[in-house]
Order: sequence, then structure tokens, then C-alpha cells
Amino acid sequence: MTTRTDGRNVDQLREVQIATDYLIHPEGSVLITVGRTKVICNATIEDRVPPFLRGQGKGWITAEYSMLPRATQARTQREASKGKVTGRTMEIQRLIGRALRSVVDLESIGEKTIWIDCDVIQADGGTRTASITGAFVALTIALGKLYEEKNLPVFPVRHYLAATSVGIIENVGVVLDLNYEEDSSAAVDMNIVQTSDGEYVELQGTGEEATFSKKELLELLEYGEVGIKQLMDIQRSALGELAHKIGDKGQVTK
Amino acid sequence: MTTRTDGRNVDQLREVQIATDYLIHPEGSVLITVGRTKVICNATIEDRVPPFLRGQGKGWITAEYSMLPRATQARTQREASKGKVTGRTMEIQRLIGRALRSVVDLESIGEKTIWIDCDVIQADGGTRTASITGAFVALTIALGKLYEEKNLPVFPVRHYLAATSVGIIENVGVVLDLNYEEDSSAAVDMNIVQTSDGEYVELQGTGEEATFSKKELLELLEYGEVGIKQLMDIQRSALGELAHKIGDKGQVTK
Amino acid sequence: MTTRTDGRNVDQLREVQIATDYLIHPEGSVLITVGRTKVICNATIEDRVPPFLRGQGKGWITAEYSMLPRATQARTQREASKGKVTGRTMEIQRLIGRALRSVVDLESIGEKTIWIDCDVIQADGGTRTASITGAFVALTIALGKLYEEKNLPVFPVRHYLAATSVGIIENVGVVLDLNYEEDSSAAVDMNIVQTSDGEYVELQGTGEEATFSKKELLELLEYGEVGIKQLMDIQRSALGELAHKIGDKGQVTK
Amino acid sequence: MTTRTDGRNVDQLREVQIATDYLIHPEGSVLITVGRTKVICNATIEDRVPPFLRGQGKGWITAEYSMLPRATQARTQREASKGKVTGRTMEIQRLIGRALRSVVDLESIGEKTIWIDCDVIQADGGTRTASITGAFVALTIALGKLYEEKNLPVFPVRHYLAATSVGIIENVGVVLDLNYEEDSSAAVDMNIVQTSDGEYVELQGTGEEATFSKKELLELLEYGEVGIKQLMDIQRSALGELAHKIGDKGQVTK
Amino acid sequence: MTTRTDGRNVDQLREVQIATDYLIHPEGSVLITVGRTKVICNATIEDRVPPFLRGQGKGWITAEYSMLPRATQARTQREASKGKVTGRTMEIQRLIGRALRSVVDLESIGEKTIWIDCDVIQADGGTRTASITGAFVALTIALGKLYEEKNLPVFPVRHYLAATSVGIIENVGVVLDLNYEEDSSAAVDMNIVQTSDGEYVELQGTGEEATFSKKELLELLEYGEVGIKQLMDIQRSALGELAHKIGDKGQVTK
Amino acid sequence: MTTRTDGRNVDQLREVQIATDYLIHPEGSVLITVGRTKVICNATIEDRVPPFLRGQGKGWITAEYSMLPRATQARTQREASKGKVTGRTMEIQRLIGRALRSVVDLESIGEKTIWIDCDVIQADGGTRTASITGAFVALTIALGKLYEEKNLPVFPVRHYLAATSVGIIENVGVVLDLNYEEDSSAAVDMNIVQTSDGEYVELQGTGEEATFSKKELLELLEYGEVGIKQLMDIQRSALGELAHKIGDKGQVTK
Repeated sequence: MTTRTDGRNVDQLREVQIATDYLIHPEGSVLITVGRTKVICNATIEDRVPPFLRGQGKGWITAEYSMLPRATQARTQREASKGKVTGRTMEIQRLIGRALRSVVDLESIGEKTIWIDCDVIQADGGTRTASITGAFVALTIALGKLYEEKNLPVFPVRHYLAATSVGIIENVGVVLDLNYEEDSSAAVDMNIVQTSDGEYVELQGTGEEATFSKKELLELLEYGEVGIKQLMDIQRSALGELAHKIGDKGQVTK
Repeated sequence: MTTRTDGRNVDQLREVQIATDYLIHPEGSVLITVGRTKVICNATIEDRVPPFLRGQGKGWITAEYSMLPRATQARTQREASKGKVTGRTMEIQRLIGRALRSVVDLESIGEKTIWIDCDVIQADGGTRTASITGAFVALTIALGKLYEEKNLPVFPVRHYLAATSVGIIENVGVVLDLNYEEDSSAAVDMNIVQTSDGEYVELQGTGEEATFSKKELLELLEYGEVGIKQLMDIQRSALGELAHKIGDKGQVTK
Repeated sequence: MTTRTDGRNVDQLREVQIATDYLIHPEGSVLITVGRTKVICNATIEDRVPPFLRGQGKGWITAEYSMLPRATQARTQREASKGKVTGRTMEIQRLIGRALRSVVDLESIGEKTIWIDCDVIQADGGTRTASITGAFVALTIALGKLYEEKNLPVFPVRHYLAATSVGIIENVGVVLDLNYEEDSSAAVDMNIVQTSDGEYVELQGTGEEATFSKKELLELLEYGEVGIKQLMDIQRSALGELAHKIGDKGQVTK
Repeated sequence: MTTRTDGRNVDQLREVQIATDYLIHPEGSVLITVGRTKVICNATIEDRVPPFLRGQGKGWITAEYSMLPRATQARTQREASKGKVTGRTMEIQRLIGRALRSVVDLESIGEKTIWIDCDVIQADGGTRTASITGAFVALTIALGKLYEEKNLPVFPVRHYLAATSVGIIENVGVVLDLNYEEDSSAAVDMNIVQTSDGEYVELQGTGEEATFSKKELLELLEYGEVGIKQLMDIQRSALGELAHKIGDKGQVTK
Repeated sequence: MTTRTDGRNVDQLREVQIATDYLIHPEGSVLITVGRTKVICNATIEDRVPPFLRGQGKGWITAEYSMLPRATQARTQREASKGKVTGRTMEIQRLIGRALRSVVDLESIGEKTIWIDCDVIQADGGTRTASITGAFVALTIALGKLYEEKNLPVFPVRHYLAATSVGIIENVGVVLDLNYEEDSSAAVDMNIVQTSDGEYVELQGTGEEATFSKKELLELLEYGEVGIKQLMDIQRSALGELAHKIGDKGQVTK
Repeated sequence: MTTRTDGRNVDQLREVQIATDYLIHPEGSVLITVGRTKVICNATIEDRVPPFLRGQGKGWITAEYSMLPRATQARTQREASKGKVTGRTMEIQRLIGRALRSVVDLESIGEKTIWIDCDVIQADGGTRTASITGAFVALTIALGKLYEEKNLPVFPVRHYLAATSVGIIENVGVVLDLNYEEDSSAAVDMNIVQTSDGEYVELQGTGEEATFSKKELLELLEYGEVGIKQLMDIQRSALGELAHKIGDKGQVTK
């Protein structure tokens, strides 16, 4: 078996940092660094909900995702210049929003929308999972402010939430947290979003011009769990005091 | 445990029909009916590939998906009138194309694009999985014509491919092939795309404001396998003579 | 004089069928088949009118028209993918809406909009006239339901309405109901929309790089009348009981 | 019978003027005034044809139509600001282009496109027919320059071409050349485009929430012919020397 | 030192005319001619303000700018056909609106929007400054009507406002009022918008692939002042009686 | 006279930092911080020029500008989501590109385009001038690499280039380098782009609902010069070795 091109063990995450209070204006602002991937995650609280939710006394969380043109090796044309958002961007935006909504008590926050903006300033694989992991922290900080300010009865975040990628690379096998080079050559690629009680929120496994067996699936899920646990430790450190308010304490219990 | 609203067993597919030669112009044309869901799947062969593939001697498969405005209970605004394709549509289009590419030998067909058009004329849940199952047949028929006409060395379809949905419904548990009513109330929803040798091509499990455990995941996968086997039997009947040309014979062997 | 390529007499319609209750969701749903041309016509009742009509106590009828990409010989790009509706589509949509409004008592239905969706699933010439003829039936069925449900004082459809095309083909002369091949080679092309009391609603004659005399015009109109009468017989059969409710009984009286 | 609100006889045109060489840059430039309706018609010669005509040695004529925002009583939003062209504009553009192509020998001009721009600076009804009548003159002037410059074997304009509107107004009956007020209240509205040998190029009769009989149709056509003859006299004066080059001499001979 | 290509002195304006009441529908309508540049400037009064101003009891002035496709030497594609407004157009629209707002007492007119439409029908350089100079007159006429009709306490226009261009041309030096040919070859180009009390409203100096010194800047400003004074004399004549109502009397006093 | 709200002297810049090699992929990458305003400026070298320059052997520089949605106090909608770029963005993009082109020898770099991307991650006034000042450094670094790699005969950057804003604030007077709060309340706002030999490249002075005299203009220019000199010192430090290659050495000599 060959080793990984950047020398990591197959079940080893890249170095991860989560800097909080990154920008001054947003209610929650985080810079998450996963290896060479860097994403600014900002949370904004808006005092209204989309039309389909009005009058139900319930909140909403929605996400937008973008990359700087030179986040990538070659320059990518701006979606604003093209005048439309690509399918890939839409897919990622919907995933981030859906994942975050699964761990928040939307009734408890009332008719508010939390906008999550994930802006990738440097990309080296795993931008969507880094976005979810970072956005969870930005969201929790913003909701922490709302909790204080409005004296909410319960803290609205029920579980920790983090995401990572796993994949199968020819001659290497199953690996955790693929960088861009690995992702480009992987036969199978899977994104896993999990909560701190060990439950799945999203599982998206894709064999691009390839397939995978049930045995391989189970191995992929195990590697993912290893990574997610470590990511939650880093989230807990980044959140400081707020960490104790979350429904369960960021221990994947299973 | 409650039973399903339409009286089916939890592991029972709706009635499925695949009518071939549905329209006269396309190289492959199928009407697939899954319960009350009806999708026209057409395959078109075009003599060129997208720019990113030119000069590589390799083919491409791409898909477009749409719903008639009154395929649904309430009328949906046309995407052409809105001037843009929604995120949901893009997600589905990308999924269909990716799934079909996984079982076709793209090198063997040369620089051609196969366009797959899935137009839902009536929707009652499961339109994306019905699209994949029907599109596989339309694609195989179109490639069958190409195979004859160009005297290709190998038949370019390597495996059967079919898709279905599984989910978890409160007070019912895991069910196979959700209709619209079930899909709307499901806690967990998973789309499974599998080949005839029992391998996964796509696995998309989502807990919308809910989560699922590994044990539940395994049960969902088992139910899916039951449905996919039956769908491949129906595909094999629909394909008639062509069925024998596909790399393996549509038996989920595992 | 040469005969027509499909062997019809110059004043002979293609075979026409109108299947009602085609789809389950719309208030009125019809599949009209004119030779090899097939159009799904759905009618939807919406409980409001466009802004320019609000507060006048009057209803509105509007139409949308589209073709499946492979309704045609060669694949046509989707208007949703292009992000805009073509001029041809707009012209047809406006024509269908205008024609239908001319035979309906819009005051009697109150502030409702009837949306007419004409989706061509297979095209072989005459799609806009088939759309009008089929849409009239779908509209009447939908208005029949409204009439029952709201106990309207009068049945809101005043006359039958049908449409056909006529044209002049070199070496053949004036012909009725052109198929695609004839339409492509016709020197003059005219669409006629007429009511059951023999009045014209729309008359659109075009000499594409050609012209026509008044004598030819009169002959075109005569051929049109022959076709329209037969189309109304087929509409009357399709409508069954409802046929008797229409202001005049579908006899072109003139 | 009531008389017309502006005192004209029922078969009387408004005052018409065609000023040539209106702007300095275009190859042909005309300001046509029909009563209070004013349209700038410019013709531009471009040295290439649209993709579908390339390599056939044949020319093309295409038209664009627009109104200044305050050409109308109330300000109309610019189509450029809306980001799309309305259905009405598209319909008119297609009509103008089609009409002009019917009297020009497109083979004789070679692979060139003549762009016709009709910009309505003041609107009082009949803008599309004024556009055709004015555009014919601008086009002929531009083709006159091409004829001189390239020493073309034949003058490429075969007939005169002009357009007017006729309609039926309650309590007045059939009238020629409707102004905006008349157009708004007309039961039937018909646009007629005719050549100098008395043939029809386009006939578009519409009963907006009304219908018309064959007898009325014939009366409408007669009134139209009266107007078209006079318009061609004015075109002939405007063209000066060039008038003699047109295939027939602008006499409606019939 | 060489002289200018059209024989003018370096500090000489082209011939300027301002025709009022040019079109019948707008509240203020002007055709301004500056040499061969011709712009129709229309002012429309609308009884509401944009959302950001609602409820403040204050008015707004906004401008739109466009060129006919053949206003220019070569035909320019319509922005409506392209589906978007270019950056150049947006820049000019914003400039015109901002400039006009600086001399109007927006509080005194109440919650109204004045739309300014500047449509260039012929372009030979200086279209944006001609637009401002002409639009000022159209605006004043429209506000004059509002003043009469609503019996406003003060006349809402406080100062005259006019604009011109100055530039530096190699081998000629500083010149006033550049035509298209001069503008294309100028090393430095500056637009000056000034009020009748000699104050600047806008100063936009640009060295396209060139630069300019402070000494040159001062010379440019002097030339501009010469032109602006003359333009205000012409505005005063065009306004007739209304001229006396403007806050100061159109004398650049400085 | 009142002092500034943040305690600065009227002619004092905010604290400025220019970090180079900020991101790993771009050929030149800079983070410029001006007080609380932060802009990432990336330069990309592309091996082709826009169509209008092809075959002339000359290069091009173009810029794009964007703000993160939460760069601002309140969240701004993404231009990609709106589907179009605002007028403000276009104006800024054009300004940045034009300014940079004025100090680069475009002939010497051959047929290449340098793309400048300025992405504002935090905004507190002066984002366009910070973009120019930062982009100059990113551009110089990218051109430095090209110079080495292609062994260019001359270093293509002829002068230093920096930009700042000046303005007039009521009760304070002329000030240098306005923050957002000052900018919002300024009567006059001017952006100055200057080269290291003291020449102006762009001068954009605007009185939003206000005006300014020539005396004020001269004072504004003097304040600007003070700021620009200091900005060039910081650019020189950031460039290190490369600083010596620029045509003149970043001393405003005048």
C-alpha cells in the first residue's frame, strides 16, 4: 500500500484551526483553516423569515457559499459576472443550510432568519465540509448573542455538528479528509455530516465513473467518525464558554 | 406499528411500467410509470462533446430534468418563465448524469454526447429515482442503435443501473419507494442508485430536521436492495433483445 | 397537380383525437393528437387575477406553451437552460390566451385566473393550432367544475373555439392542416381561429419570402372552415355532457 | 353612425411624412410621422450573415424595435432595465423583418445582413405599421448605396411594401389607420402589409374579446388597400431618383 | 501648435441648440444639439419615491441613459437584446441623476420621483455632458408645471446646472468641448458639471494610459468655465419665462 | 472647529498595512488593511487578451471588485444571487483597471491579460482607494514574476500608483482618508489616484446634494498628496527588492 502524497496517515485529518471574531460586523464570524483550505463563515441574524414560513412563529437558517476567483489554482470566473449561480454552488448551499437546521431548535428562536455566508478564500479540497464545520461555530456564536439578548428559555443549539470527507483512492484505499489532489483522483468520494450523539445528518457518497461495495461503505463511515470527533474537540475549544450551553457536550457518544 | 397510507407493505414497490418507443423522434424514448409518477425519458445522440473533453476521443452523458407546471398538485411556475433553473433541478440533473456515466464505457463511444431529457408529466414522489431508472433504458436503447450502426467493438453499457428511495416514517419505520405524501412526512429520506453487481453509485441520505443512526442506515440499504432488484427485472423485460448485450445480466449478484 | 406527401386530400385533416382526464392533478387535462403532433393541455384555476385587473370583479385567462427538447426531429435547447423564452414561444402564448378569452364570459367567473399550459411532447407541424383546439376542451372542463362548485348563474363558455392551419404549397395549391414537412416548404402559411358561429377570432397569414392574392385568401379561408367544423365535432364528443352547456352547440352556422 | 374622434373620414389616413437622411451615421435613415406617431427607422449593412445562413451566398434582413420610455402617455420601463424584451416587442420585430424580406432579392445582395432599427420616439397608435412603411424606405436607400458601390447586377428591391392598420369600432364601423384612442376601443384590429402589385405579405386580424365575420373581413381589406396606395405614393416621393429602380413602380395594380 | 480638426478655437464650444416641447407626452421634453451630438431629454413626474425614501416627505430624481444602435458610426448592440446594461451606461446614469439632485430642493417637491430619460439619437462625443445640460432644461420645465399645479411655496430649482468636457490633445494642448474624434485621441479627458454660482458639482478627470499635472488641471478648469457660462445663456433662452424663477439667474458669479 | 470622530488629525491617514503572499495560488496576492477596511487583492496572469486587442502584441489589465455580504454593517445581497452586478461595482471595477493601466508598459508584456481581483472582506469606507493601492502591489509582484520568467527587456511598471480619498465635512472642513461614518456625512467626497511623479491619473470629486469651490478643490488636492506619499512608502516596504525595479523610486517628486 502506498502512502498519501502529503505524508499523512490514512485516518489523519489535516491541521484544523477555527479563529472566532474574525470580522467585526457579523453576529458570528469565523475563519476556519483545514490544511490549506480557508473559509470565512459569517452568521447574520435577520428579523424576518421567508414567505413560506410567515406567521408560524418559527425561525429559519439559510446558507450561501462562494469562492474568490483565485481561491483555486486557475482563476474561476465570478458567478456575479456570469449572472448566475452554478449547480455546484446551489448544491453546496442547500447542503449547508439543511445540515445546520437539523441541530437547531427553530421554534425557540421565533421568526428570524439566520443567514450563513461561507466564502472560500483559499481552496485545497473539502471546502463544503469545512464550511459546515466552521459555519456551526459562527451560527452558535450568533445564537449565543440572541440567547443573551432575548433571554431565550432554552439555548437553541441541541447538538454539535461537524462534517468531513472520506474517500477511496486507488493503491491507497480508504482515506480521511481528502485534499484537492486526492479528491481529483479518488474513485469514491463521500461527505459525512454527523452530530455529537453519533447520528448522521447527511451522507452523500458518489462514485464518479466508479462504484463502491457495502463493505467499503462501512469502512468509509468509520474513518469519518474518527475525523468528526476531532473536529468537535476543536469546535468546543473555539466556542469557549458557549460550549457548555449546547444540548450535549460535543462528545460523540456511541 | 401503523401500515402505509396506500396499503403497501413496508418493503413493497409501487406498480412500475416502462413503455419503450414512446416518442418517434428520439434515439431512445421511454415512459416510466411508478405508481402515479410518470416521467418521459428521452435520449439524444449528438456528434460532439463539451469543450472540456474535446480531442480526448471520449464520450459524455449529460442530463436535463424538468416538470410540467401541473405535474404537481398546485401549479409550479415554469423555470423558463422565471428565467432560471432552481437549485433542486440542478441537483437532480447532476445526479442523473453522474449515475448514468458510471455504468457506460465512455471511451468506446468516441466523441459523442448523449443528452438525457427527463420530463416529469405527473409527480407523486420519487421523480428523480424514476428518472434514473427510466433514463437507463432510454440510454441503452440509444446506445444499442449506435452499437449497430457504428459496429462498435463492445456494447458500451457495462451494468444495469436503477434507483429507488427509502425512508423512515414516524410510527411506521423504514419503508421502500415513498410516494409524495410519505416523502413529505418522512424524518429521513435516502436515494440509492445501484448497479446490477450490487455496488453503490450514489447514496444520498438526508435527515431534514432529523438524524439517523448506523443501524437505521443498514436497514435502509437492505430495503433499497429489494426494490432495485425488482426494478432491474422490469428494465430487462423492457429492453427485450438488448438485455443480453449488457455486460452483466441484470442480476444483483451479492 | 401533385398530391400531398402523406397521401391526404388537399382539404383533409390529419387524424385527430382528444383524450380527457389525461393527468390527475389539473382541473382540466387533455392530450390532443393531430397526426403525429401531440400536445398536453392543462387548465389550472387560480384564485386571483394579475395586478392590472384587481378589484374589477373580472377573471382572466393566460397561456404558456413549451416543447419538450426532443419533441422535434433535432433536439432543441430548453428555454429554462437558455434563461429566456424565445420570440416564437411568446407569440404563441399570447395567441392562445387571446383566442380563449374571446369565447369566455370573464365577468361571470369573478376574480380568477385560468392558466392554460400547452406542452408539446411530439411535434409534426400545427402545434399552435392543436394547442388552441385542445386547450379549449381543457378550459371548458375546468370551467365546468367551477360552474358546478360555485353554482355560477351562466355557463361561462359562450361558443366553441377551434383552430387549424391552411397554406399554399407550390405544385399542390391550397391545403388544409399542414404537417411539418409541408409547413417547411409552404409559400404561404395561415392560422385560423374560429368560433362555432362562424366568426373569426384570429387570422394570421404570412408569406415567408412570398405573397398571396385576395383570391387565394378566400380559398384559404374556405379550406379552414371545412377543418374547423370537423374539429368542433371532435371537441363535442370529448366534452360529453358538458357539450350541451356551451352557449351555442358547436355547429358552425353560417 | 358617429364620426371619428379626430374628425377624419372612416377611410382617411392621418397626415404622413417621410423625412430621409435623418441621421448621419446609418446607411439609410428615415423619420416617419403618421399623425402624432413618430418612428426613426435606420438601416445598417453588416458584412456577415447569421450562423444558419453562412456559406449559402445569400443575405438576410433582421429588425429590432423599441420605444423611448416616454413615447407613451405614461412612462414605460426600459426593456434594458428589465433585462428582457417583452413578447409584444418580439412579435413586432419578427413581423417587420419577415415583411421586408418578402420584397428583397436576398440572393443578389450576397452574404450581408441588413439591420433595421425602428425606434419609436412618440407613439399614438400604429407604431408597427409605421415602422414597416418607414423601414422600407430606409432599407431601399441603404440597398441603393450597396447597389452603386458593388455594381450589383439587379436592384435588389422587387416591389414597394407598406403597411397600415384597419379596425372595427363600435358605433362607427370599419375605419382606416387607427390612432391610439381608437385602437384601445376597437373590437377588431387588423394589420395589413401589402406590396405594390396588390399582394398580401402579412394579414393579422385579431378580435380582442370579440370576433368578426367574413363580410367584415372583406370590408377591412378594402379600406386597407385605400391606405396602402397612398402610403406608397409618399414612399415614392421620399425615395426620389431611387423610386425608378424598384422592380415595379409603386402602383398597386390590381 | 496645431489647430483643431474642425477648425474651432481651443476654447470654442460647438454650436448648441436646445429645442423645448420636443415630444408631446412628457412633462418636460427637450432636444439638445451640440454640434452633431443630439440627445432627447424627457422628464416624467411619478407620484411615489423609491422604497429607501418612503415616508420622509422628500422627492427623488433618477436618470436613465441610452443610445440608439445607430447613434454611433458602427452599430452598437441594444442593451435590451443583450439583457443587461453596460458599466458605461450605469456610470452615466448615476452621474446625471446625482448632478441634477444637487441643484433641486428635494424637500419642497414632496414624495415624487422625477425620471429623466436621456436618449442619444446621434453621437459625436460629449453625450453625457449634453445629456446633463439638456436634462436640466427638461427637468426645470417639468418642475415648473408641478410648481404651478401644486402651488408650491418656492420654485424647487436653486441654481442653473450645465456640463461640458475639456481635455488635453497632443500637439494641440487643452481644448474645450471635444468631439468624438478628439475624444478618441485625447491624452486626458475631464467632465465638469458646474452651477451658476461657479461651484463644482462633479469633476471627473481621467488620464487613459496617461496622466496630468496640477498646472494642467487648472487650465482645464478655466476652459470648462468658459464653456459652462455660454451653455447657461442658451439654457436661459430656452427656458423663457421660467428662467426668472430659478434661485439665481444663470450668471456664473465668481 | 470640531475634531474627527476617531480622533485623527484632519490630514492623518488611518493605520495602513500591506501583507504580501497572502494567498498561495495567485501570481500576486496582497491583504491591504486601511483602518478597519480590509481588501484581498489578487493578480492573475492569463495568456491571452480580450478580442478587441488580439494581434496587436499588447497586454491588458482588467479588474473585478466585490464585497463579502457581511463586509458591511448590514448584510448586502450577493450580486451572484441577484444575477447582476450593480452600477456601483461596475464603476469601481472600471476605475481600478483604468488606473493600473496608466502606469504599466502594456506593450512590453505581450499578449497577456492581468486580472486584478479586489475582494473586500471588511468595509469601513475607502474600499475603492484601498483596492487600487493594494492592487498596485499585487500587480507589481505578478509582473515581477513575469519579468524574471520571460526575461523581459524592461520592468513593465513605470511609476508607483496609490489612491486615497479626501472630503469636506461640515464643522470640520477638509479631511484626509474618510472612514465610513465620515463618508456618509461628507458634503463633498473626492477620490484621487496619483503616480509617484506627482501626476494625476484620476480625479473624481462629487458633491452629493452639495457643491465645492475652486479654493476648496485646491485644499482637497493638497491633503490628498500628503496621504498618497505615505501610502507609497508603505507600498515600497511591502515590495522589498522589487521596489528598486519600478521606473521611478516611489518619491512623489514635485
